[in-house]
Amino acid sequence: MRRLVALALVLSPSLAAAAEGMWTPDQLAEIAAPLKAAGLELDPAALADLRGQPMGALVSLGGCSAAFVSAEGLVVTNHHCARGAIQLNSTPERNLLVDGFHAEALADEPSAGPGARIYVTEAIHDVTDRVLAKVKPGMADRARFDAIDTARKELVAECEARPGYRCNVVSFFGGLSFRQLVQLEIRDVRLVYAPPGAIGSFGGEVDNWMWPRHTGDFAFYRAYVGPDGKPAAHAPENRPYRPQRHLTLAAKPLGEGDFVMVAGYPGSTFRHRLADEIEAVIGWTYPRQIAQMSELLAIVAAAGEPGSEVAIKYVPSVAGWENARKNFTGQLEGFARADALGAKRREEAALEAWLATQGAAGRRGQANLDALRAHLAKARETRERDQHLAAIGATGLFSAARTLHQLSIERQREDARRQSGYQKRDEPAIEARLRQLERRLDPGVDRQLLRYSLLRHAALPQAQRLPELDAWLGLGEAGPAQREAAIDARLERLYANTELSDTATRMGWLAAERGQIEASDDSFLQLAVALSPALQRLEDARKAHEGGLLRLQPAYMQTWLDFRRSQGRATYPDANGTLRITFGNVRGKSPRDGLAYLPFTHASGILAKHTGVDPFDATAAQIQAIEAGAQERVVNFLADLDVTGGNSGSATLNSRGELVGLVFDMTWESVASNWLFDPALTRSIHVDLGYMAWVMEQVYPAPRVLRELGLRGD
Amino acid sequence: MRRLVALALVLSPSLAAAAEGMWTPDQLAEIAAPLKAAGLELDPAALADLRGQPMGALVSLGGCSAAFVSAEGLVVTNHHCARGAIQLNSTPERNLLVDGFHAEALADEPSAGPGARIYVTEAIHDVTDRVLAKVKPGMADRARFDAIDTARKELVAECEARPGYRCNVVSFFGGLSFRQLVQLEIRDVRLVYAPPGAIGSFGGEVDNWMWPRHTGDFAFYRAYVGPDGKPAAHAPENRPYRPQRHLTLAAKPLGEGDFVMVAGYPGSTFRHRLADEIEAVIGWTYPRQIAQMSELLAIVAAAGEPGSEVAIKYVPSVAGWENARKNFTGQLEGFARADALGAKRREEAALEAWLATQGAAGRRGQANLDALRAHLAKARETRERDQHLAAIGATGLFSAARTLHQLSIERQREDARRQSGYQKRDEPAIEARLRQLERRLDPGVDRQLLRYSLLRHAALPQAQRLPELDAWLGLGEAGPAQREAAIDARLERLYANTELSDTATRMGWLAAERGQIEASDDSFLQLAVALSPALQRLEDARKAHEGGLLRLQPAYMQTWLDFRRSQGRATYPDANGTLRITFGNVRGKSPRDGLAYLPFTHASGILAKHTGVDPFDATAAQIQAIEAGAQERVVNFLADLDVTGGNSGSATLNSRGELVGLVFDMTWESVASNWLFDPALTRSIHVDLGYMAWVMEQVYPAPRVLRELGLRGD
Repeated sequence: MRRLVALALVLSPSLAAAAEGMWTPDQLAEIAAPLKAAGLELDPAALADLRGQPMGALVSLGGCSAAFVSAEGLVVTNHHCARGAIQLNSTPERNLLVDGFHAEALADEPSAGPGARIYVTEAIHDVTDRVLAKVKPGMADRARFDAIDTARKELVAECEARPGYRCNVVSFFGGLSFRQLVQLEIRDVRLVYAPPGAIGSFGGEVDNWMWPRHTGDFAFYRAYVGPDGKPAAHAPENRPYRPQRHLTLAAKPLGEGDFVMVAGYPGSTFRHRLADEIEAVIGWTYPRQIAQMSELLAIVAAAGEPGSEVAIKYVPSVAGWENARKNFTGQLEGFARADALGAKRREEAALEAWLATQGAAGRRGQANLDALRAHLAKARETRERDQHLAAIGATGLFSAARTLHQLSIERQREDARRQSGYQKRDEPAIEARLRQLERRLDPGVDRQLLRYSLLRHAALPQAQRLPELDAWLGLGEAGPAQREAAIDARLERLYANTELSDTATRMGWLAAERGQIEASDDSFLQLAVALSPALQRLEDARKAHEGGLLRLQPAYMQTWLDFRRSQGRATYPDANGTLRITFGNVRGKSPRDGLAYLPFTHASGILAKHTGVDPFDATAAQIQAIEAGAQERVVNFLADLDVTGGNSGSATLNSRGELVGLVFDMTWESVASNWLFDPALTRSIHVDLGYMAWVMEQVYPAPRVLRELGLRGD
Repeated sequence: MRRLVALALVLSPSLAAAAEGMWTPDQLAEIAAPLKAAGLELDPAALADLRGQPMGALVSLGGCSAAFVSAEGLVVTNHHCARGAIQLNSTPERNLLVDGFHAEALADEPSAGPGARIYVTEAIHDVTDRVLAKVKPGMADRARFDAIDTARKELVAECEARPGYRCNVVSFFGGLSFRQLVQLEIRDVRLVYAPPGAIGSFGGEVDNWMWPRHTGDFAFYRAYVGPDGKPAAHAPENRPYRPQRHLTLAAKPLGEGDFVMVAGYPGSTFRHRLADEIEAVIGWTYPRQIAQMSELLAIVAAAGEPGSEVAIKYVPSVAGWENARKNFTGQLEGFARADALGAKRREEAALEAWLATQGAAGRRGQANLDALRAHLAKARETRERDQHLAAIGATGLFSAARTLHQLSIERQREDARRQSGYQKRDEPAIEARLRQLERRLDPGVDRQLLRYSLLRHAALPQAQRLPELDAWLGLGEAGPAQREAAIDARLERLYANTELSDTATRMGWLAAERGQIEASDDSFLQLAVALSPALQRLEDARKAHEGGLLRLQPAYMQTWLDFRRSQGRATYPDANGTLRITFGNVRGKSPRDGLAYLPFTHASGILAKHTGVDPFDATAAQIQAIEAGAQERVVNFLADLDVTGGNSGSATLNSRGELVGLVFDMTWESVASNWLFDPALTRSIHVDLGYMAWVMEQVYPAPRVLRELGLRGD
């Protein structure tokens, strides 16, 4: 009967509607009324204080979100966000992704890896005036891009002159404003606790985006700093970082309808894009990318059985392609279900109708909108070629060669003038990427993947192809029938005459000068050199296109904001990797007629799903602990707030700003929300704090962490 | 938002628990209190009146249930119950299963087929004393069987002496009591209305046992009688039957939690069986039958592509096997989920503990229980052979030959002494079955099916095999390696030397005398003759076994009833094809942790499921009608009452006894309820009266039927 009692609680009709919106901290005052209405017990204004409670405790891991939960720098995030660190500390004898990990003492906490970071946002400054200072009306698009790019780099360089800080200048509302993020960059991150994989990734890919869900997707890191209290690279003498703030843990379990908010670092959304853009995504981008990823997946699948050495090297690629393919498929389903294109078109028609009532300003707005549409349409002309070139650029050895060559070119320039991604600040990441290749590359598969995209490129009309690539491949006048043989012959020599797959050789080139690289007889470096002018030409075109967007988009966004304001609607900027707050309530949904997702799952559901076979292989300890009376324990819950990729690991807070769980996924019907938020169907999936504590108490014990969290008195 | 409003309505916690029980009309007084508590507004005692309102309106179709809904003999039932009649009236040009059917005028109503029947139950008499009159203590089991069998046949013959009546003597509580059912047998049944298949079987096999469901599973028949008002075979001069009662249609739509009851003719349940029996079903019967049906399905699948002439002939067999296989699989899942065997064992342990407190009577009860267990165990010794022989007996040509031979033997006896199934009253059904073979037989497939079971039989230990069958197959001393070749050689001759696949020849043998059949040179008749002594031996053994059950089961059931009465529990007899009433409430359920089935589905869900491909190919007219504002119309609903196969087409009545829909299925998690009723998971699926009326008004119009139902004034 418990189930039906839970049912009854789920769905009280008095709840407010799902709360769309990823609000910037400074917008919280603007939405104070809906926040209060949804149940927030704190002062919305206090929430805006980046250094206050709870916002001061919330951090970014770069791609994931997290939160400080102790005065000693303990950080909680998702198990899937700590996956790399857990894998790194595994050995052939001890796979921590399977077994789990718990450091018995502080001294046992291993490094999460040289690339692991914790970013503490200390300030966000509006720097629009400085970024746009050199922009003049009537400027050419490329000049506009360079003016803005240069100003952004200057701002970053100034800010990062202070050691221990990472700074970014980020565009909001398509370049309508720019903000500088000042983040303390903690570089010594250590692994404290991860549950066994049968808990941390229970359900695996099968349950990805699914509900009902039963995943204990949590892990703990600790931030370390040098003896002087400042960020430092991993070193034995470092000591735990003492954050200014850490979250309080909620004592009271959540109930159906309760207020929840999530503060974190969502990556990208496209809610303010034009209907033409969603039409292109539906009609071309996603279908083509799904088809392409299916081809790449087939190549890797044919190269080796699951579990073989080759297959293991491509596990991250395969996971990424499968994830994206599933996501795009879900988005297309969602677009169709919600008639997303129709909705966008109707919204734009309403905007244009409103513009028609706005006199001269309205006419200017309409002209700008028309120009923006035309500008976007122009970029779509080469999208097929761009897709193939991106795939070529993503193959392992070519990517390494291209990076080495471009870095040698950029290093000839002063740092501030180097291309983004090749500045001194980027070099550690470049080095990590190049080194990582040793675990992710099989030359045979690499060649198959490159061959696939070269053939696709060669099949394009001549006007779209890169002459440099045609020349290098020796395609010349080759008809379709000869192309394949020509490409195969070239690939044969290409892979026979390179040593870039050797890590020492590859890393050795990192220090080389441009002249050395351009004189190299390594075939992949020669290919990168041969294509360099073409790729530079495309890069220049891209910058000009971006410049055009920076000319047209801010004006469009201003029009859009004015239009929405005329309807009394507040507008949040699209997600851009910066700190956002979203709020809503714990609630289920009806994913389709006659069916409901209930807002809570329970440990009993783990027993029901348990098959003994990965990914549904609960541990014996867990099964025993559940059967010993924990069947009713909440595992995961749904909320109607608004998150996206990058929010993984974000703290879920209750009405008093206390930690109640972590967001780790959204439901299948929600994936289209990146483009169009559907309040009836969009739900985030959270792991419950009580479940985390129970796992650490009963299943895979972590008494030291529990004591530090104040959950155990002894 | 409609969905969530519906959600909120679904699950008020104040509802009574699901109501297990298939009650006989005479038990309604006993359960008056729970009936009232669940919401019945009628006097429970009035419900017991078979000729009163509403019970007088409820009829059996033999295998399905139905109800009179007009004074002119209009009968409503499920589309799937009328499937044969719809098919029968189809032509190569006009497939009524696809197109639907509507008789414009009374004169256009075609026959539902010579085998179609409507049975109106007029009386149910307790005849236990008469049935058991000749039973003596200490009688041999076979003699006991014969005494009871003879008494039952006499009772039937007496009752059926009145023309137009069909009478059955049915065992209740395993032979503890016997009741005679007196049913008016209407033999002129005509087809009035069937919606297109895209409505009547929307979702097809895919949605079978599934929720959410969107099937318009309804159709209309009309009962006809001779000019004298008495049952008669189909004839032009017949006129509509005027039933004493017909159902009133509910004016008010159902809501979540509303009282509903279903009155109909459930076929078989096994709720009072022993734990040993459920153990055998779990451990042997269902797994073996699933395996066997999979083999048979593979044979038919290999014989021809779907849609081929061969495949079409086996559509009913394939549907039956697939249905049973899916059902058994679901039951096994359900048994595991509910630990059905453990529950039964615990229940029996409680019974035995109680018996131990009951003195001498308790000791007798225990001894009887032990004896019953041993008796059942003995029958299991030959279950493998029995399975193979049953499969051999079910193949087309052998079944025909066996029937023809046995009928010629039985006809030598006076009717009252013939074996059940071969009496004069059974001859029309035998003839229909033999004729039907012409549409259901492909000799090549028949041979494959027979070969499969002959090989399985031949692989049994010799002690289990039928010597007559071994001899006929010429297996003799053949080792396993030679058996297959010997059987194939025999089958070659068997199928080469028969003309039973010719319908005229086959039907010609119906009139033959025993001597003619036994002298026939038709190889299948020769096989039937050769096996006759063996099969008669088995039949004799079966009767002795049944006699043993009739000795042991009544005493066990009495003990069981006393035990339950000592706990204050009322007990209904297992379903046995007789009229039963079950009641409960409209309600959803949580089929698994975190998920809920909502109690209503809506027309919008048809649009969501529609793919344009069978079985999800809504008609254009329906799509248009839904889009024109009917999205919120209820299509199907769930209730927690207790039904099983045979209840298909049963009228669903509201608290005032008015028609609100028809039951047509139960959910996947409910199929194990035949053995063990799980109130949390057992739900019946109903088609809503409002949807039926809307289809007849808006989608596939039937103004004449609507007028007759009082749903249209013009």
